[in-house]
Amino acid sequence: MAFTLEELAGRFGGEVVGDPAQRVGSLAPLDQAGPQQLAFLANPKYLAQVETTRAGAVLISPDDLAKVASSEADAHGARNFIVTPNPYAYFARVAQAFIDLAAPKVQPGVHPGANVDATAKVAASAVIGPNVTVEAGAVIGENVRLDANVFVGRGTQIGADSHLYPGVAVYHGCRIGERAIVHAGAVIGSDGFGFAPDFQGEGEARTGSWVKIPQVGGVSIGPDVEIGANTTIDRGAMADTIIEACVKIDNLVQIGHNCKIGAYTVIAGCAGIAGSTTIGRHCMIGGAVGIAGHVTLADYVIVTAKSGVSKSLTKPGMYTSAFPAVDHADWNKSAALLRNIDKLRDRIRALEAALADKPQGGA
Amino acid sequence: MAFTLEELAGRFGGEVVGDPAQRVGSLAPLDQAGPQQLAFLANPKYLAQVETTRAGAVLISPDDLAKVASSEADAHGARNFIVTPNPYAYFARVAQAFIDLAAPKVQPGVHPGANVDATAKVAASAVIGPNVTVEAGAVIGENVRLDANVFVGRGTQIGADSHLYPGVAVYHGCRIGERAIVHAGAVIGSDGFGFAPDFQGEGEARTGSWVKIPQVGGVSIGPDVEIGANTTIDRGAMADTIIEACVKIDNLVQIGHNCKIGAYTVIAGCAGIAGSTTIGRHCMIGGAVGIAGHVTLADYVIVTAKSGVSKSLTKPGMYTSAFPAVDHADWNKSAALLRNIDKLRDRIRALEAALADKPQGGA
Amino acid sequence: MAFTLEELAGRFGGEVVGDPAQRVGSLAPLDQAGPQQLAFLANPKYLAQVETTRAGAVLISPDDLAKVASSEADAHGARNFIVTPNPYAYFARVAQAFIDLAAPKVQPGVHPGANVDATAKVAASAVIGPNVTVEAGAVIGENVRLDANVFVGRGTQIGADSHLYPGVAVYHGCRIGERAIVHAGAVIGSDGFGFAPDFQGEGEARTGSWVKIPQVGGVSIGPDVEIGANTTIDRGAMADTIIEACVKIDNLVQIGHNCKIGAYTVIAGCAGIAGSTTIGRHCMIGGAVGIAGHVTLADYVIVTAKSGVSKSLTKPGMYTSAFPAVDHADWNKSAALLRNIDKLRDRIRALEAALADKPQGGA
Repeated sequence: MAFTLEELAGRFGGEVVGDPAQRVGSLAPLDQAGPQQLAFLANPKYLAQVETTRAGAVLISPDDLAKVASSEADAHGARNFIVTPNPYAYFARVAQAFIDLAAPKVQPGVHPGANVDATAKVAASAVIGPNVTVEAGAVIGENVRLDANVFVGRGTQIGADSHLYPGVAVYHGCRIGERAIVHAGAVIGSDGFGFAPDFQGEGEARTGSWVKIPQVGGVSIGPDVEIGANTTIDRGAMADTIIEACVKIDNLVQIGHNCKIGAYTVIAGCAGIAGSTTIGRHCMIGGAVGIAGHVTLADYVIVTAKSGVSKSLTKPGMYTSAFPAVDHADWNKSAALLRNIDKLRDRIRALEAALADKPQGGA
Repeated sequence: MAFTLEELAGRFGGEVVGDPAQRVGSLAPLDQAGPQQLAFLANPKYLAQVETTRAGAVLISPDDLAKVASSEADAHGARNFIVTPNPYAYFARVAQAFIDLAAPKVQPGVHPGANVDATAKVAASAVIGPNVTVEAGAVIGENVRLDANVFVGRGTQIGADSHLYPGVAVYHGCRIGERAIVHAGAVIGSDGFGFAPDFQGEGEARTGSWVKIPQVGGVSIGPDVEIGANTTIDRGAMADTIIEACVKIDNLVQIGHNCKIGAYTVIAGCAGIAGSTTIGRHCMIGGAVGIAGHVTLADYVIVTAKSGVSKSLTKPGMYTSAFPAVDHADWNKSAALLRNIDKLRDRIRALEAALADKPQGGA
Repeated sequence: MAFTLEELAGRFGGEVVGDPAQRVGSLAPLDQAGPQQLAFLANPKYLAQVETTRAGAVLISPDDLAKVASSEADAHGARNFIVTPNPYAYFARVAQAFIDLAAPKVQPGVHPGANVDATAKVAASAVIGPNVTVEAGAVIGENVRLDANVFVGRGTQIGADSHLYPGVAVYHGCRIGERAIVHAGAVIGSDGFGFAPDFQGEGEARTGSWVKIPQVGGVSIGPDVEIGANTTIDRGAMADTIIEACVKIDNLVQIGHNCKIGAYTVIAGCAGIAGSTTIGRHCMIGGAVGIAGHVTLADYVIVTAKSGVSKSLTKPGMYTSAFPAVDHADWNKSAALLRNIDKLRDRIRALEAALADKPQGGA
């Protein structure tokens, strides 16, 4: 299976420079690609490879092509190009197309070992795998794939073209938009963590208990969202937890009840966001970041990995509270001094006071 | 479906002030409630809303009712109250009752697609969902619900009225108390992380291996415990890992082997507790907190979010080691100074020494 | 079931001192063991217990035996020993043997409720549990155990003698080596977190989207690896994510795409390793450690719990960036001073300048 450059440009855009009839059948890095392969230049530091690559064609930006053209490319360099402002995104789209062509065809239909309630609506084009459970009133859209052991609770809706990998559990009363990708083991719609303290007395004499606050909201997820493996998104207490369009969430992320995550925001692995927090659009939340409950992050906020956010961040920008690991003994010395930094401050104060008592130099 | 205030007071306690025959059929916030709805005042800052609410009745504390009564409530304010020392907990209990009434009735019995060993004891009132596995000798109590794909290992006991959500795995030889709620994907009883080093030589020449320490304890969980989605609780090495009564654990929490978590303690999402650590009663462990192994926390210890505990905390109180994120460049400046804080200390010392050499001011 | 000391030495090595015909049937701590039990001394601080134990035999190192022999052991102390350089590892191996003997025998074969593709190769000695899915072309080795609800994707290979606990999902195109132990809920081979930004414009006017980078590598896992419950290991983007031999990974760990984890390295719970990072052999990664993407850690690197690694660590040694929790109010004072540490530095500078202007003491 191969495409001509003309066919690719017709489908994905861009302008062909060189031979439009050149065929490419797969993708490879510039330095490894052969004459039937398509390579891409996304990082200018690899520009020199364009002049030596054996690739059948190269995805390149107009600026980079100009640089290549003005240099003295030897006979072995690239002759054929698809010119596009974003070669990396173009590469991703072509790669996906090649994968889709190569993927085994899955027959639509409900596996005989699945349990689909008679009142659930399942599109005829959907693929429902073995041991899947779809409860009453659930709606499974066109071309949806539910892999083995997926659970879809009563009344939950899964948008068209979504793919839920093995063992995903979506509780009742949730909505997932179109083209979602939810990786294995993710849990959507579990109860938010809410308990009313009902204790009397103090210390040893304390009696009473925690009373569970029922969580009757759902989770509402927009289109084009990807959710990582074993990530958890809790349902809202009264209203829904909301994940807007094109949010991308990595593995082992926790999103508390009644959070709202703005469109296009990306959240890296092991991050945790406590309840009722609102994150803006186009934010980037680093790995293992923790964000407190009931705070608001503006659009375009970046929080670097392992930082903690305890208050609202009202302006776009990059925020940090993490230290890089250094030699253990050195760290311990600094940490001990930090713990007593007030003593250093006091010594500075004492010096300032002592000096203020002194006659001025030269006096 | 609705209750009179008299009926509610009969069931949940409290004193009716106003019309005991007033009926309420659902719950709503003070500012949104209508004449057939029950609202609650838990936070005095919303006291003014009691004077304007259209709610059929309001849950209120005696103190707050006194304030309302002494103000000049207009004709639209609340006329009917249930007076209770803890309106928030009361609200939670009533909300749960409404939910239970509205929930679809689930028929007891074992789904034909479940795999229940002939030697397991399953109460007739239990609901065993599709693809559930219950191994030999397991005991499933009255009214237990095991949702789709739950796994209960050999000899494990699940207490009455517990609900295990889809995909929960409880290994062999564990005990879960009554009224437990275990959310989807939680794993209870996986092997503790224990290996004996058996290496010879150093560096490149090192040979040998890690030898697994068999984990033959179980997990023992008291009554009224809630465990969040994808949380993991390891079995003990020799003795059991212990979770006492009414402990509430959020999502994606890791609890190592042979930990003991005291009654009523709450643990927020993404926290991790290493092996053989004991946490007291009524503790509050914040989100993403990490606690080292083999330490002990006293009763009533609070550890704030993202903090790390490396030593025992022997007194009640609040403990912290996390910084809030600030502007990235500012942070980096502070971090660089911290890394060289010993140099600042040395400069202070030098100043002190220099000043000690000086004649006293006025001399 | 019991072994003589001679039988144990024949199977596990070591030298019997005392009666080779002494039989032991189980293991117990020194201070609890009875005359039919085997105890071990791994920590010299319990040496005195050897002199009072009632254990039938004690695993002991040559050095510790010499100390015992030279002391005046009374009549109740240990008389029989197996002498081995590493009593703890020896204990672990013997304990495993006792467990294997006691474990219920599981019949090989495929559970009728499993879904095994006709083109998958499943060894006759393998145990395939209920609701397991094995897709086309997968290879399941000799004596493999796949517990309930395990998913093995198309073409994936599971090495001989491996045990996958309930609900483990291994995506297509992955390889797991021999003798692997994978705990419940672990996900292997989920897509790496990679998206090409394809946005135009800034702020409110921004348009475009994230374009998914297809993840076409797999995960390659060596022999003797253990993987904890709900841990996630992403597949590579182009090449494989690699876990070398005898790596031990705890619960709730995230390993990003194209990481390479060197042999014998151990990774404690809640750690997260971002994509394309290489960790050396014999490293120890503490609980909740975060490691940035695209960095390299040398062999024998130790990172202490909750630390963050943002740059390569090229030398063996111990690295840290975490603080221990202290009293909340004290912490906040230190944190406030740290945030303004540049002001302290400025005050030191001012003092130094002022002092430089002064006449020298005694002048």
